Amino acid sequence: MDLQKRIERNLERAVTYATAGGNPSIMCEALKYAVFPGGARIRPRLCLAVALAAGDNAPSASDAAATAIELLHCASLVHDDLPCFDNADIRRGKPSLHTAFGETTAVLAGDALIVLAFETIARECLATPDRIGPLIGVISRAVGMPHGIIAGQAWEAEDKIDLKVYHRAKTSSLFIGATTAGAIAAGVDPQNWYRLGEALGDAFQVADDLRDCAADPDEIGKPCGQDAAHDRPNAVRELGLGGAIQRLQDLVGEAAASIPDCHGSDMLKQLILGEAKRLVPKNLATVAA
Amino acid sequence: MDLQKRIERNLERAVTYATAGGNPSIMCEALKYAVFPGGARIRPRLCLAVALAAGDNAPSASDAAATAIELLHCASLVHDDLPCFDNADIRRGKPSLHTAFGETTAVLAGDALIVLAFETIARECLATPDRIGPLIGVISRAVGMPHGIIAGQAWEAEDKIDLKVYHRAKTSSLFIGATTAGAIAAGVDPQNWYRLGEALGDAFQVADDLRDCAADPDEIGKPCGQDAAHDRPNAVRELGLGGAIQRLQDLVGEAAASIPDCHGSDMLKQLILGEAKRLVPKNLATVAA
Repeated sequence: MDLQKRIERNLERAVTYATAGGNPSIMCEALKYAVFPGGARIRPRLCLAVALAAGDNAPSASDAAATAIELLHCASLVHDDLPCFDNADIRRGKPSLHTAFGETTAVLAGDALIVLAFETIARECLATPDRIGPLIGVISRAVGMPHGIIAGQAWEAEDKIDLKVYHRAKTSSLFIGATTAGAIAAGVDPQNWYRLGEALGDAFQVADDLRDCAADPDEIGKPCGQDAAHDRPNAVRELGLGGAIQRLQDLVGEAAASIPDCHGSDMLKQLILGEAKRLVPKNLATVAA
Repeated sequence: MDLQKRIERNLERAVTYATAGGNPSIMCEALKYAVFPGGARIRPRLCLAVALAAGDNAPSASDAAATAIELLHCASLVHDDLPCFDNADIRRGKPSLHTAFGETTAVLAGDALIVLAFETIARECLATPDRIGPLIGVISRAVGMPHGIIAGQAWEAEDKIDLKVYHRAKTSSLFIGATTAGAIAAGVDPQNWYRLGEALGDAFQVADDLRDCAADPDEIGKPCGQDAAHDRPNAVRELGLGGAIQRLQDLVGEAAASIPDCHGSDMLKQLILGEAKRLVPKNLATVAA
């Protein structure tokens, strides 16, 4: 089964549990709306790709980890779009969740997705119960305080902000969560997979900054220019367009070089170099070539 | 050590992890503000009381479970007070979190507390790793969709609402989470402790309805009359004042009677009958006597 099918099937399975009989129906619709149809599913793909490279000896654990990471990502998007944050009307090319369902439902849907993420790991890892604690450990660190994506969003309220610490928390932390959780799910040492997540997360943040400055809004399914509008740090504002593209390419190279020796390391290296090409917005591809 | 000291010490320990160095400082203040000083800590007290009655053979597990349950309760209060929910200015006798720190920080603080709850269980149960999955299972069911407190809040958006299903989700579910998690933490069968949580949760909901209708706002630290103002179901509106007080007393009796035989069952029974007296607002105590 290809990665995308595994991911969608397991997200469906998790959301089905959360929307079982006797439920409040509007919230059920909201949860499905938040998760499907998805974006590129880049974080769960990365999690599963690492698990596969490392042997994937407990697929139910790697599926649960990948599902949890994507649910947490979806939750962060729902809350990040709220009027008191980015006040974004559009997400993944359709009305943002609070635009479609109202703010109350959007706050609760984000909460429910966070809970469902951890519940999924506890429920699906019965064959490898010794991996539940370590998985929840790395994934909660990737999203919570003091260094996960919630901390990243919280940095936006601070007067003094270190761009590197901010990006590490807001974006890279969940990529680190994805690679280290993939490793734990496959029963190998997560420390060897930390740098891969970190470098890819940093690369993704630069790519996100490039898209925000220079992409076609129709291509990315949300408005551009949000960082300038909210006076947020952005790599293009810091390094210029050419400098940001060079930084992105350096980071992808470092990521590929960091992959530890394992039976699937060549396959994973090719996958990452291939995926990285998709990170540059189409209208900048000639600049990047 | 008495229960209250154990609870506060372990909440301090969890919040200290979440506010470790290199953090966004406003969010750290907000997390402390959300958790301290607390209310009656009734849910973690119940969780620890059950664990103690059942032998408490892994105190780090029962401490982690009690801490997680209180953190989740605090998170639900922060989000429930938001302008798009109850729009409450006052909580526990001081400005609600969004009133003190703004909406953005309040949404994120709730999210961070949810994550911290699950992280605490994963981190603190290293001596009994086989209990991590079952603990996270019952606690996530108690708070998430389709039947936990988030579902309870979500029911408020529905046109058709079954009062019993609504109260079960919004209030009783976390009491069930507290008793069953206490049992799991002590290594005994959680099913035998389900009814205790359910009956106490139902009793607490009736007491909450009584307070909303008839208490002195200074006594409970928040405004009264919110259910009528938001046209929400309330046991006093349904059963009358006398009927609601009778129902509360019946439920407490059922709770005490449901306690399974164990070395601490008599102690627990006395504790519950004693605590129940505090549930009735002071100005109704003569009606209840």
